[in-house]
Amino acid sequence: SFYAVVANPDLWLHILTVGIKIVAILVGTHLAVRLARTVIERLVEQRDKGRIALNERRVRTMTSLATNIVTYTLYFLALLLVLGQLGFNLAPILAGAGVVGLAVGLGAQNLVRDVITGFFIIFEDQFAVGDVIQVGQYKGTVIEIGLRVTKIRSWTGEVHIIPNGRITEVTNFSVANALAVVDVGVAYDTDVDKAMRVLREEILEEVQRELPDLVAKPEVLGVEQFRASGMVLRVVAECKPNTQFAVARTLRQRIKEGFDRHGIEIPYPQMVMVQPTSPQA
Amino acid sequence: SFYAVVANPDLWLHILTVGIKIVAILVGTHLAVRLARTVIERLVEQRDKGRIALNERRVRTMTSLATNIVTYTLYFLALLLVLGQLGFNLAPILAGAGVVGLAVGLGAQNLVRDVITGFFIIFEDQFAVGDVIQVGQYKGTVIEIGLRVTKIRSWTGEVHIIPNGRITEVTNFSVANALAVVDVGVAYDTDVDKAMRVLREEILEEVQRELPDLVAKPEVLGVEQFRASGMVLRVVAECKPNTQFAVARTLRQRIKEGFDRHGIEIPYPQMVMVQPTSPQA
Amino acid sequence: SFYAVVANPDLWLHILTVGIKIVAILVGTHLAVRLARTVIERLVEQRDKGRIALNERRVRTMTSLATNIVTYTLYFLALLLVLGQLGFNLAPILAGAGVVGLAVGLGAQNLVRDVITGFFIIFEDQFAVGDVIQVGQYKGTVIEIGLRVTKIRSWTGEVHIIPNGRITEVTNFSVANALAVVDVGVAYDTDVDKAMRVLREEILEEVQRELPDLVAKPEVLGVEQFRASGMVLRVVAECKPNTQFAVARTLRQRIKEGFDRHGIEIPYPQMVMVQPTSPQA
Amino acid sequence: SFYAVVANPDLWLHILTVGIKIVAILVGTHLAVRLARTVIERLVEQRDKGRIALNERRVRTMTSLATNIVTYTLYFLALLLVLGQLGFNLAPILAGAGVVGLAVGLGAQNLVRDVITGFFIIFEDQFAVGDVIQVGQYKGTVIEIGLRVTKIRSWTGEVHIIPNGRITEVTNFSVANALAVVDVGVAYDTDVDKAMRVLREEILEEVQRELPDLVAKPEVLGVEQFRASGMVLRVVAECKPNTQFAVARTLRQRIKEGFDRHGIEIPYPQMVMVQPTSPQA
Amino acid sequence: SFYAVVANPDLWLHILTVGIKIVAILVGTHLAVRLARTVIERLVEQRDKGRIALNERRVRTMTSLATNIVTYTLYFLALLLVLGQLGFNLAPILAGAGVVGLAVGLGAQNLVRDVITGFFIIFEDQFAVGDVIQVGQYKGTVIEIGLRVTKIRSWTGEVHIIPNGRITEVTNFSVANALAVVDVGVAYDTDVDKAMRVLREEILEEVQRELPDLVAKPEVLGVEQFRASGMVLRVVAECKPNTQFAVARTLRQRIKEGFDRHGIEIPYPQMVMVQPTSPQA
Amino acid sequence: SFYAVVANPDLWLHILTVGIKIVAILVGTHLAVRLARTVIERLVEQRDKGRIALNERRVRTMTSLATNIVTYTLYFLALLLVLGQLGFNLAPILAGAGVVGLAVGLGAQNLVRDVITGFFIIFEDQFAVGDVIQVGQYKGTVIEIGLRVTKIRSWTGEVHIIPNGRITEVTNFSVANALAVVDVGVAYDTDVDKAMRVLREEILEEVQRELPDLVAKPEVLGVEQFRASGMVLRVVAECKPNTQFAVARTLRQRIKEGFDRHGIEIPYPQMVMVQPTSPQA
Amino acid sequence: SFYAVVANPDLWLHILTVGIKIVAILVGTHLAVRLARTVIERLVEQRDKGRIALNERRVRTMTSLATNIVTYTLYFLALLLVLGQLGFNLAPILAGAGVVGLAVGLGAQNLVRDVITGFFIIFEDQFAVGDVIQVGQYKGTVIEIGLRVTKIRSWTGEVHIIPNGRITEVTNFSVANALAVVDVGVAYDTDVDKAMRVLREEILEEVQRELPDLVAKPEVLGVEQFRASGMVLRVVAECKPNTQFAVARTLRQRIKEGFDRHGIEIPYPQMVMVQPTSPQA
Repeated sequence: SFYAVVANPDLWLHILTVGIKIVAILVGTHLAVRLARTVIERLVEQRDKGRIALNERRVRTMTSLATNIVTYTLYFLALLLVLGQLGFNLAPILAGAGVVGLAVGLGAQNLVRDVITGFFIIFEDQFAVGDVIQVGQYKGTVIEIGLRVTKIRSWTGEVHIIPNGRITEVTNFSVANALAVVDVGVAYDTDVDKAMRVLREEILEEVQRELPDLVAKPEVLGVEQFRASGMVLRVVAECKPNTQFAVARTLRQRIKEGFDRHGIEIPYPQMVMVQPTSPQA
Repeated sequence: SFYAVVANPDLWLHILTVGIKIVAILVGTHLAVRLARTVIERLVEQRDKGRIALNERRVRTMTSLATNIVTYTLYFLALLLVLGQLGFNLAPILAGAGVVGLAVGLGAQNLVRDVITGFFIIFEDQFAVGDVIQVGQYKGTVIEIGLRVTKIRSWTGEVHIIPNGRITEVTNFSVANALAVVDVGVAYDTDVDKAMRVLREEILEEVQRELPDLVAKPEVLGVEQFRASGMVLRVVAECKPNTQFAVARTLRQRIKEGFDRHGIEIPYPQMVMVQPTSPQA
Repeated sequence: SFYAVVANPDLWLHILTVGIKIVAILVGTHLAVRLARTVIERLVEQRDKGRIALNERRVRTMTSLATNIVTYTLYFLALLLVLGQLGFNLAPILAGAGVVGLAVGLGAQNLVRDVITGFFIIFEDQFAVGDVIQVGQYKGTVIEIGLRVTKIRSWTGEVHIIPNGRITEVTNFSVANALAVVDVGVAYDTDVDKAMRVLREEILEEVQRELPDLVAKPEVLGVEQFRASGMVLRVVAECKPNTQFAVARTLRQRIKEGFDRHGIEIPYPQMVMVQPTSPQA
Repeated sequence: SFYAVVANPDLWLHILTVGIKIVAILVGTHLAVRLARTVIERLVEQRDKGRIALNERRVRTMTSLATNIVTYTLYFLALLLVLGQLGFNLAPILAGAGVVGLAVGLGAQNLVRDVITGFFIIFEDQFAVGDVIQVGQYKGTVIEIGLRVTKIRSWTGEVHIIPNGRITEVTNFSVANALAVVDVGVAYDTDVDKAMRVLREEILEEVQRELPDLVAKPEVLGVEQFRASGMVLRVVAECKPNTQFAVARTLRQRIKEGFDRHGIEIPYPQMVMVQPTSPQA
Repeated sequence: SFYAVVANPDLWLHILTVGIKIVAILVGTHLAVRLARTVIERLVEQRDKGRIALNERRVRTMTSLATNIVTYTLYFLALLLVLGQLGFNLAPILAGAGVVGLAVGLGAQNLVRDVITGFFIIFEDQFAVGDVIQVGQYKGTVIEIGLRVTKIRSWTGEVHIIPNGRITEVTNFSVANALAVVDVGVAYDTDVDKAMRVLREEILEEVQRELPDLVAKPEVLGVEQFRASGMVLRVVAECKPNTQFAVARTLRQRIKEGFDRHGIEIPYPQMVMVQPTSPQA
Repeated sequence: SFYAVVANPDLWLHILTVGIKIVAILVGTHLAVRLARTVIERLVEQRDKGRIALNERRVRTMTSLATNIVTYTLYFLALLLVLGQLGFNLAPILAGAGVVGLAVGLGAQNLVRDVITGFFIIFEDQFAVGDVIQVGQYKGTVIEIGLRVTKIRSWTGEVHIIPNGRITEVTNFSVANALAVVDVGVAYDTDVDKAMRVLREEILEEVQRELPDLVAKPEVLGVEQFRASGMVLRVVAECKPNTQFAVARTLRQRIKEGFDRHGIEIPYPQMVMVQPTSPQA
Repeated sequence: SFYAVVANPDLWLHILTVGIKIVAILVGTHLAVRLARTVIERLVEQRDKGRIALNERRVRTMTSLATNIVTYTLYFLALLLVLGQLGFNLAPILAGAGVVGLAVGLGAQNLVRDVITGFFIIFEDQFAVGDVIQVGQYKGTVIEIGLRVTKIRSWTGEVHIIPNGRITEVTNFSVANALAVVDVGVAYDTDVDKAMRVLREEILEEVQRELPDLVAKPEVLGVEQFRASGMVLRVVAECKPNTQFAVARTLRQRIKEGFDRHGIEIPYPQMVMVQPTSPQA
């Protein structure tokens, strides 16, 4: 009867089906591996021609790393599929791989978030290389936008390297005209009208002629504040992006000179010295 | 007996059923792909006509990207369904896809949250382009509301780009009338009643005639604070949204001029200089 | 023998069962869709009559959106059920839908939390439209309570829009009587007993007669603090909710006037000017 | 042969079993619904008699809401069980319900945490209505402890509503005797021994006789600090809970009077005015 | 043929097996319930004799609550097991219970963490009742260590109730000897060597004789800081735990007295008053 | 025919197989329990000989606790396996155990993280007992490194107990030579060159001879800051780890003495007292 | 008939298949273990030759630890696979292992994140050993980059040990030229033009000749600020990385000397002393 078992055509049909499926799995895996390699290479080539210049050596390392990871993962998958066809119970292996996958997936979620955000930064054109931006406490000129990190250089020369996933609120200083703001203190006994007239009719006219970065004539807004040592007059000047600091410095120098000409003083702190009267006497 | 197996009608019926199902899967996938494409195109067209003007090139890139992702995902699903019909054990592939899906899902949850919040911002009309709003530490005029990010420009010209998911508490300055608040210090030996009368009957009347942005006559609230250098009188003026800073500046100038006319001084810090008495002697 | 297969009554019984089940699925789905629509409409109608006035256009958009989402979801479910009856292996589709569902579920959890908290705010009557409340750093009068967001207007006119899920600790200023607190400084050589007597027997009596918002006679609590420039006396006055600022202002004015009448001074900062003695000599 | 199928007793046995099971499911569901309703009613009744007085209308709304949710959930479950008995593949429905359940579960976890913490606050008797407590930055008298929120009223009249899940560290001021702490400054040329003797032997004796809230005789701890304007003596007095502010105020007044009697001065800030010597000359 | 079905011994064997299993489930559940009750009672009894004294009434409530929860959970489990034996498809019930379990599990994780941390606090003997500890911003004497919360009383009498899970970094002040640190300012024209000699050879000797809480002779560390008003000398004294404040107070008093004896002054702030020279003239 | 059932050899073969499997489960469990106990004992013994001295009583408690938990868990698992072999549907029990396991797992993740970080602290030799380290705001000498917590004693005697999982950034002060930094102010009219020469050629030479803790000759870095009261010169001295405070104190004393010898003054704050000129007159 | 069972060739075929599978599992496990060991050894060897020098003893401990963990895990997996082939129901064991795996996976996710970030730090060459970087509040020279932690030494000698996963935003000071910034105050009556001319034409020329670290001639930017005590002039100088502090110190010294030569004073704080006029009189 053992012969009957061996000669049972159902058995052979089963063996045949399994064999065909295994061959199909192997062929499919081979095709998938080649497809993955082609896709990775094309992505790299396309990117190579794009606006983001990449370090050549680093690209090659990354490509080979990605190819290796994909290849080994696909072959491992193929092994599992073949074992499944051979009737092995895969639950323990799948559970084990699941725990490893969970730990890696949790640990890698920052990486995924960096890449997704990086894609949107580039796609939405939030800022470009050369723009002056601020991210959190880091401000500077963008020198590199990558898929994972963005690098900016502050005006004092530090290079800040920021993962894209940490770039949430961005402030871009290079998109719109800037406003230079200068606050000048005058004493309480100053003639405010005269000071504002001097500013408007003489000083700001002069500054506007001097500075080509100005987009419009500077304005005197008025009395911004009552302070301990006097009143504060606010002057603003619309200028080209990122020129506001230089403009404000020139404004300050010209205002000081103009005020000197008209005898308007910028006051030092003042203190009224009272002599104790009744109780102490 | 091999012939018997091959001639078994059940086998052929099974093969027939599987074949029909595979054809159905392929046809269904094809229909689903076309449906998805149509839906994406309609969404884009509808949005195109809506109030949010979108950059043409970016829309086309986004459309083709979304179409590609949906198409490849559906074909991959169809492949899995066909493999399932052919009797392959799909558990390993599903587990692998699940880990990748988990990492992508976790990494993309910010993206989903941005879009959901963006939808509600537009739907609930929380603010419109042109409104002055504040989100966290960022304040400015809204210049663009998108599904993923909102852009606002501060009064000094910076453009803040804020992901919608980070917009939780919003302060809108353009909805209701604003209140300009001016605090004026007077010395402790000032006649408070006189100062308030001068303010009410002379200065504020004059300001109300001068400023068309005022909605009501400014009010003197009273003695707001006892401070080291004197008392603080508070003046408030209801005005049109976002005019409160200009109104306050005019108010300050007029109050200073009026006080000067009536000899009421805004005091400098005072200090009583005591001579050491008993112990030091 | 093919005829035998086709003529097998079990096969036809199976086909019959499957057919009946598919018809049942379709009919059930149809009924479920109609039920869901009716429920949504009733909810909207009921809410319409409730105390929360809703923008008509927005309600209609929301209703049609909710109906669409529910309808398409149910039909998609029905499709899956039918495919299941036809013997398709649904695991890949379910896994794919699960990943999408996970991402949407994670991204939408804020939305769910907003609605749940909104329900409890309304149900527990934590605050009502018109109340003055503070949530985190935002303080103002409630102008709208919605299921997802609450809007409050600050006293200077800004409108804060706060998602309900961000409303954790709430401070309600409109429930209980408020306490106006006024701290008055007197010099170290003042007669504390006399100052407190003047306050109690003269000034506070007068204020109580003047202000109808007071709920009880203001009290002098005593010497609250030893400060560099003198002692601080604290005066408190229970008054109606949200009148404490006006009450405190009047209190300050009356105290200053009363102290002036009795020659009690509010001191300026004092400084003992020592002449360097031994070592410098 | 169709007759053979229909006459097959196994089929009828199967149909019979399924029928019995469906009847059992329906009966079981009915019983479960009634049980759930009874349990909810009993809970409400018991709580009604307990120490937490609940608003009648709100209880009825809550009861009917809970009953409705439980009833519909159970009937939906019964529907699924019946469909399962009829041989439907429930995976799609379960997956859909799972996604909804996940979103609701995540969104509702705050609610669950509030209730669990609320239970422990009541069970562990951390504080009672009438106690003065501080939670985070909110301090006041407890006026209501609920399962979800706790309400406290600050001494200036605001009512803080705090979800129980946000109550982690609690400070209870009403459990133990409080300590009133008064710091008095004396100049560097004061006789410390004399000052401490005057405090101990005269002033604090007097205060102890005067204040019934004191639990023990106030103590002079000694020289607490060397400060710019002199030394600081610290006086402490154990007193009944929440009377420490009033006690400290009386202490300050009595210390000032006692020091005046003995010619001990509380010093104003002192400054040695040096005349520039060598280099400036 | 119906008779054949009914008379089929396989059917009866199946019914018999199921019956036996159901009986086994019921008996097993009964035993498990009794075991759980015994375990809970023993735990309570053991704990009763341990070092943590528990409120009797609270223990009884807790015991009966725990017993009820365990009992009902086990009976519900048994019901499910019996239904499973009867051939019901339990997936819907399990899914429903899973969602509820998830919400409760997420909401209860704080509770679990409190208990685990509480266990380690007691097991690792991090602090004991009577120790002075600081947890975050809360400092005081431990008055109760529970499995869920720890209570500490601050030196001014407040009782802080802290969930154990919030106790991460703990500072224990009662384990090691403390160091009293006193900083004394001297003017820049003081003879530092003389001041340090007086401190070392006279004052600190005297203090060491006076104070039994000192563990070693106090030390003069040297010139700790150059400050605006002079140099700062630092004196430290090792003493018994929690006596450092009293020791420092005595040290300060003795240093002042000793310095007075030797004519070393603790300086008031000094200011060089320059007369404007050239430009102003 | 009942006899036929009972006599069916397949039934008996099934019963036999199940019996053998149950016996195998019981034997395997027994072996696993013994193996676990041996492993735990060996771990404890090995650790006992290692560099971490453990409290004997605590080790024994911990060992017996771990053994108990492992034993009961394994027997519970064995029970489930046996029930599975007997044909019980284990889904409900597994789901229940899963919910409990999830809650415990979430609550215990801090514990796991503490142990993993503790292992890496010891393995990577980040710091050793006796080192001076800073973790967050806690600085002191390490007195114990455990698997779960690390204890450090601050220089004033407090013992900080820090869970290892909270130790992220660590600063170790005992690895590299330290740098003592002393900033000395000199007036604006001081001869900077002379001051720096005196420092370099006289004072720092002398200090280097005096202090054996110095690793190199102290350096004068130059003018560190322009301050209101003068310029700041910075002196640095490389010295052995943790001696920098004593070195800086000696440096300060010697610099003061040397400056005194050469008539260089450390300036008090200066203030130019201007007489109001034109407007006030 | 028992003989028939035993002689049933299907049974023996089943036993044979199972036997072959078990042998295959054992052989496969053995091969996997050897493969894993080889991979680990190769990784260690490769790394050994790389740029990261590793402590020899630590490498060996780590290698043997990793090998042990992998080996025992694979054998445990093999045991499960064999049990599965023998027909045991593995669900309970898998569930138990899953709970343990979840806790470990959650607790270990920081570890995984550290390693992933460490890989990208090295791969992207964000900084190298010897660079001066700042991470959060920690600034110093990098002395070691590992896969899990990075060590930096601050300029005062502390060694900061930072897990790579905590390194998000990095600031690298060694990549680009630095900018030394010096702010000099001058009085309001100074001739700004003259001061800037002196700076530009004399002082900065001299400094440029003196300092080889300068990359370009220092620039005077202009009037940076109006301050209480005068105007602030800003001077900047581009210099080599990390030399900016030394450059700024020299700049400050030279500016002081140059200003002295030209009689330009750096002002002390000024105060206008007003005599009280009308009201006090």
